Amino acid sequence: MNNVIVLGSGNVASHIIQFINDSNELNLVQIYARNSNKIDKSINKNLVTDDYLKIKEADIYIIAVSDNSIAEVSKNLPFENRLVVHTSGSASLDQIDSKNRRGVLYPLQTFSKNKSVDFTQIPFCLETEFEDDYVVLENITQKFSQKVYQISSEQRQYIHVTAVFVSNFTNHMFTIGNEICTENEIPFEIFKPLIQETLNKIEDLEPIVAQTGPAVRNDTNTLKKHLDLLTNEKIKSLYLNISESIQNYNVKKL
Amino acid sequence: MNNVIVLGSGNVASHIIQFINDSNELNLVQIYARNSNKIDKSINKNLVTDDYLKIKEADIYIIAVSDNSIAEVSKNLPFENRLVVHTSGSASLDQIDSKNRRGVLYPLQTFSKNKSVDFTQIPFCLETEFEDDYVVLENITQKFSQKVYQISSEQRQYIHVTAVFVSNFTNHMFTIGNEICTENEIPFEIFKPLIQETLNKIEDLEPIVAQTGPAVRNDTNTLKKHLDLLTNEKIKSLYLNISESIQNYNVKKL
Repeated sequence: MNNVIVLGSGNVASHIIQFINDSNELNLVQIYARNSNKIDKSINKNLVTDDYLKIKEADIYIIAVSDNSIAEVSKNLPFENRLVVHTSGSASLDQIDSKNRRGVLYPLQTFSKNKSVDFTQIPFCLETEFEDDYVVLENITQKFSQKVYQISSEQRQYIHVTAVFVSNFTNHMFTIGNEICTENEIPFEIFKPLIQETLNKIEDLEPIVAQTGPAVRNDTNTLKKHLDLLTNEKIKSLYLNISESIQNYNVKKL
Repeated sequence: MNNVIVLGSGNVASHIIQFINDSNELNLVQIYARNSNKIDKSINKNLVTDDYLKIKEADIYIIAVSDNSIAEVSKNLPFENRLVVHTSGSASLDQIDSKNRRGVLYPLQTFSKNKSVDFTQIPFCLETEFEDDYVVLENITQKFSQKVYQISSEQRQYIHVTAVFVSNFTNHMFTIGNEICTENEIPFEIFKPLIQETLNKIEDLEPIVAQTGPAVRNDTNTLKKHLDLLTNEKIKSLYLNISESIQNYNVKKL
């Protein structure tokens, strides 16, 4: 039950291929890639095909391609009634052609091309069309990581929005902070321990309880002082919006 | 040159007192506290006084009290021309009465009452009124941490604004994410590795370069889908504002 075929050669596909290739428990049967040059040199070239008609039999087919290509790749598969999953956080399960038994294996992490990934620490969000397939998908995923969660297509959409808030928007807060530092000749590195501690705190506390700063204290003097310091009108308005949101949340909900 | 007196019994004062008490290199001469019961039991009670007139001689006096009390405490000191510093991120140096030689020793970190602090990892922002005192303050601070930075009162104000963005506002992003998860029965813990990686990334990359997500890709489909998913108008408007800010920054500055 551990025979896997991966379709794709991008960022996520590469990391998954590497993991299965190095694994003692999973068997990398084949890779489908339109351009075999994109596959890492450490992988046996004989495993790669660019011909849909030559795709072999396996227990699971993992489509790790861009969201826009999932439908097309799954439609081109020359077989039916096999377990076919994609790895996307935002595409729904029915992006996969219905001739096969569909599923999702979504690793919740950002992947960088040249940075190795410790899959054992990554949470996987799983979904299958049929109950029996969930057990198969779960068993295979547990070879990657013990952090396995059953997540519906609808929930997965909310996971994607949440990821925007906690990762993309958080990074933008770092961008603004970095800019303020550069303008005032302050080394941004001095904030790294504070940022790490901000993250450590939510290990023990609900984020709403961990909230500190002038907005939640309703320290109007400091809020006014900060708005005076910020000369960029757009950043000033963002400071005001987020401060108001903190006050809405913490007054309303605590 | 290592004789220290600490004034205060709050959160920051407690951590500083504990550190000096445990240090082999610094000598805790005395503690001034209005309420000696607030001083930890591990500290020798004979070190504590609540009488300004009984304050002894030392190389440095560290006032670790709330911003609003710095002026009063420093005015009550029954001596002049000694080195007196406060520990505040937002109060300026001249909050301290001018009869003494003034300075600032500001540890850039959030302190929690019952959580021990590793001072060696904390950056300290130092400022003194007189150049000669800087050497003294630097020497003493280096017993706490090697991460010592000379920072003016003006720069310190910008450090405080930056801390709001990178710590307080970041925590609010976690609060919103946590709420979306609760509403959709998604365990928030699955985001912890993603959040940690968001932080790890800025070790190697400028935050503006590390930016990912639908806003920076100008992926209008996903942006629209996310706005449709968010039913709370205020959160929707925040999503829109921060996304626009990301686009302003990354189009304008990259």
